Amino acid sequence: MSKGITNRKDDYSQWYNDLVIKGNLADYSAVRGCMVIKPYGYAIWEKMQSVLDRMFKDTGHVNAYFPLFIPKSFLAKEAAHIEGFAKECAVVTHYRLKKDPNGTGLIVDPEAKLEEELIVRPTSETVIWNTYKSWIRSYRDLPLLINQWANVVRWEMRTRLFLRTAEFLWQEGHTAHATSAEAMEEARRMLDVYSTFSEEWMAMPVIKGIKTANERFAGAVETFCIEALMQDGKAIQAGTSHFLGQNFAKAFDVTFANKENNTEYVWASSWGVSTRLIGALIMAHSDDKGLVLPPKIAPVQVVIVPIYKNEELRIAINEKAIAIKGELIAHGIIVKYDEDERQTPGWKFAEYELKGVPLRMGIGPRDLESQTVELARRDDLTKSTVSMQGLPQLILNLLDEIQTSLYNKALSFRDANITTVETFDEFKKVLDENGGFISAHWDGTSETEIKIKEETKATIRCIPLDNPLQEGKCIYSGRKSMQRVLFAQAY
Amino acid sequence: MSKGITNRKDDYSQWYNDLVIKGNLADYSAVRGCMVIKPYGYAIWEKMQSVLDRMFKDTGHVNAYFPLFIPKSFLAKEAAHIEGFAKECAVVTHYRLKKDPNGTGLIVDPEAKLEEELIVRPTSETVIWNTYKSWIRSYRDLPLLINQWANVVRWEMRTRLFLRTAEFLWQEGHTAHATSAEAMEEARRMLDVYSTFSEEWMAMPVIKGIKTANERFAGAVETFCIEALMQDGKAIQAGTSHFLGQNFAKAFDVTFANKENNTEYVWASSWGVSTRLIGALIMAHSDDKGLVLPPKIAPVQVVIVPIYKNEELRIAINEKAIAIKGELIAHGIIVKYDEDERQTPGWKFAEYELKGVPLRMGIGPRDLESQTVELARRDDLTKSTVSMQGLPQLILNLLDEIQTSLYNKALSFRDANITTVETFDEFKKVLDENGGFISAHWDGTSETEIKIKEETKATIRCIPLDNPLQEGKCIYSGRKSMQRVLFAQAY
Repeated sequence: MSKGITNRKDDYSQWYNDLVIKGNLADYSAVRGCMVIKPYGYAIWEKMQSVLDRMFKDTGHVNAYFPLFIPKSFLAKEAAHIEGFAKECAVVTHYRLKKDPNGTGLIVDPEAKLEEELIVRPTSETVIWNTYKSWIRSYRDLPLLINQWANVVRWEMRTRLFLRTAEFLWQEGHTAHATSAEAMEEARRMLDVYSTFSEEWMAMPVIKGIKTANERFAGAVETFCIEALMQDGKAIQAGTSHFLGQNFAKAFDVTFANKENNTEYVWASSWGVSTRLIGALIMAHSDDKGLVLPPKIAPVQVVIVPIYKNEELRIAINEKAIAIKGELIAHGIIVKYDEDERQTPGWKFAEYELKGVPLRMGIGPRDLESQTVELARRDDLTKSTVSMQGLPQLILNLLDEIQTSLYNKALSFRDANITTVETFDEFKKVLDENGGFISAHWDGTSETEIKIKEETKATIRCIPLDNPLQEGKCIYSGRKSMQRVLFAQAY
Repeated sequence: MSKGITNRKDDYSQWYNDLVIKGNLADYSAVRGCMVIKPYGYAIWEKMQSVLDRMFKDTGHVNAYFPLFIPKSFLAKEAAHIEGFAKECAVVTHYRLKKDPNGTGLIVDPEAKLEEELIVRPTSETVIWNTYKSWIRSYRDLPLLINQWANVVRWEMRTRLFLRTAEFLWQEGHTAHATSAEAMEEARRMLDVYSTFSEEWMAMPVIKGIKTANERFAGAVETFCIEALMQDGKAIQAGTSHFLGQNFAKAFDVTFANKENNTEYVWASSWGVSTRLIGALIMAHSDDKGLVLPPKIAPVQVVIVPIYKNEELRIAINEKAIAIKGELIAHGIIVKYDEDERQTPGWKFAEYELKGVPLRMGIGPRDLESQTVELARRDDLTKSTVSMQGLPQLILNLLDEIQTSLYNKALSFRDANITTVETFDEFKKVLDENGGFISAHWDGTSETEIKIKEETKATIRCIPLDNPLQEGKCIYSGRKSMQRVLFAQAY
């Protein structure tokens, strides 16, 4: 019944790909670097979207939509932004095709060349701040708390499904404020929204922190991030929130009249998470049998599989299953009843194990007699036979238990894989033998950070928000350090 | 208090633009042909999306996501498709920018030229059928009932906000079936979903029909459409559903083994509606004072405006308003309480009139005394003073009444503007003096259809689905005709 998933310890990377492809989450496409998000993968994204969208609205944000294309000159307006985003990107140069006069295909019409090339948005700060210029006049127009759900394109040479693709889906919040403090507060608030989402919905513990100057978003004054640990000991940046200061307001000349009627530049934040979260979700919990999805984000929470040998039993069990399904739905549980007669129960068991459905309910002839069902938990693979009486509440409790258990398991793993080191030799040894986060003293210079990266591929994931000040010596340069930072190899 | 909306009869086109711009629905952008959908306009789109998405899911569909880019060669694979879509489109030719060695800006890196150009999707049949090729093996894989919410780009020279823009948002369903009958049934089912949505949610009556060969989707065997009538007597195509036969399956070689284990080409349908619906919604109901939104699609159904002269009254009214708001929300009513102290009640009245909020509730000192509120209907501008007792049910009833009344008004207008003519002179006279749909005999040839279009700008909007067969003479050629068809000038 195995679905042929590679074992994590044999080939972690292949294990991940197997889960994505065989779990029907996504597929490669004919366009290099672009993925197809299949219905099951997209259902996870829809769940993430609906939860996040509610959280954004509850914190006062509204959605809007800005153009896909950015005039080339816009990217050049913010100095740091050029460096970060104006390099690998999709460039639209023409607006018409015509039939090939020398063949049967199509060619680009040389007469339809754009005066100014358009860039497919890699992120929307520039086009949005150019728009905000005409929306903001006075402090009464502030704050603007706007989010956009959109696709973006960053030309990537080495792609991995969900984790790194040329096109991906995301949300990007872009807010405008009258004061620096308000913009900073907003950036921190959204970091909290992201960490709450990761931990409470995805059951994925994260460390909230600040990026070093090297790792900062191109155009930001400060970048906040949440970092999670995957099962192979690599870190993943799961979301970022930026305090942009007045950089984009200055680049696009966006000013406002304050209460004293003086003209000031507007303060900004931006923040985003993407379909990359699906990659993180997969790697946070899954095992060698397939996906393991936390109940609060699973597209299907309970699957009911009928087990019968003849038509009479099929009919009796079918009736019962439909009744149970209705009861569970009435309690807000997301249920699938798989009555497909073309597949065996064994095939279905393996299929839903692969797909990570949190609870599987089997109903067979003996269950019918004893008014019981068999419940199998995906997270710990335990089974139990329980009464049909009071099933909804029992299942609600079990789903909660699975959610908590997955979080605690991931948290224990994460905490067991934060190693404190004092020397660069120790640092390299831990990286080699164990991976995970390494807490080490750093002298605060980009130079040291870059050298460590060159020698070990490890980067500073963040300076944790609640970091205690603690004097020490930089593991690399030996120079004085005021605090430890978290290093890791990362996705 | 007027918001300076142009009168419909003075300049219909300017009236429309005023509603879009001053109603804060959308804005022009720095990129020619691309619009910014502002929060209030996007809230309408979100409402449309959530209702349609539910309807799609209730009819067995799931969502997925396919790449933004289409290899140029794909567009050339389906013969008719080339004609329709391979002309005006955004062409990506390069994947990198670099700093201008002779200046301060950015230039396209000539070394980063793509081997094959990529087209920003104008519609996704080609890239999706190329994908379906690897998903479909046997009849067991069918039907595939997939929908995508996405942005698309069709390079337009003359753009109008919502109605015709280079980039727009839409959904596109793409289904694959084992038989012609199933694919046709699907195309018809989705046409019904669209007409139900238009009539029951948007309060916009539509005529369901079939497009002539000239107006057919590029690549379809049959195109079904819903056509609505706007207040200026022009028609708008509000949604289309296509029976694609085996055209795309043949172009992309998508076959399946049927139950008898014979290889057959797969049958297809596709169907879509777009942000154009927002344009239709605006023009269907609005008046010279601003937008008029049907309650079932309005982002805000009831706005509460407090009216007070001093702080003591403000506090008392505020308390009451918050209590009423809570009660209404508990009954599923979407309420906004506008307690902004920087604007007068008069300004707010005009603002929500412009924004088309179906019901406005005023609470003033006298209301507080008599335990009443004042309700003002946006659709017929009538006011009534009603008791605070039993408000939620009263308001639910009123919202229903407004919804029905808007539909009936639009239906009466539409029906009063379907004119039956027997001669081409009559045809031109009606078009000139009244517009609307014109029911006329047509000889069934593309030649006649094109000539009528050239001479009058009127096109055949559709052959209504329930059209009675009725012999007659073509108004243009005098040749024999078997049925009347509906002509109109259109958006």
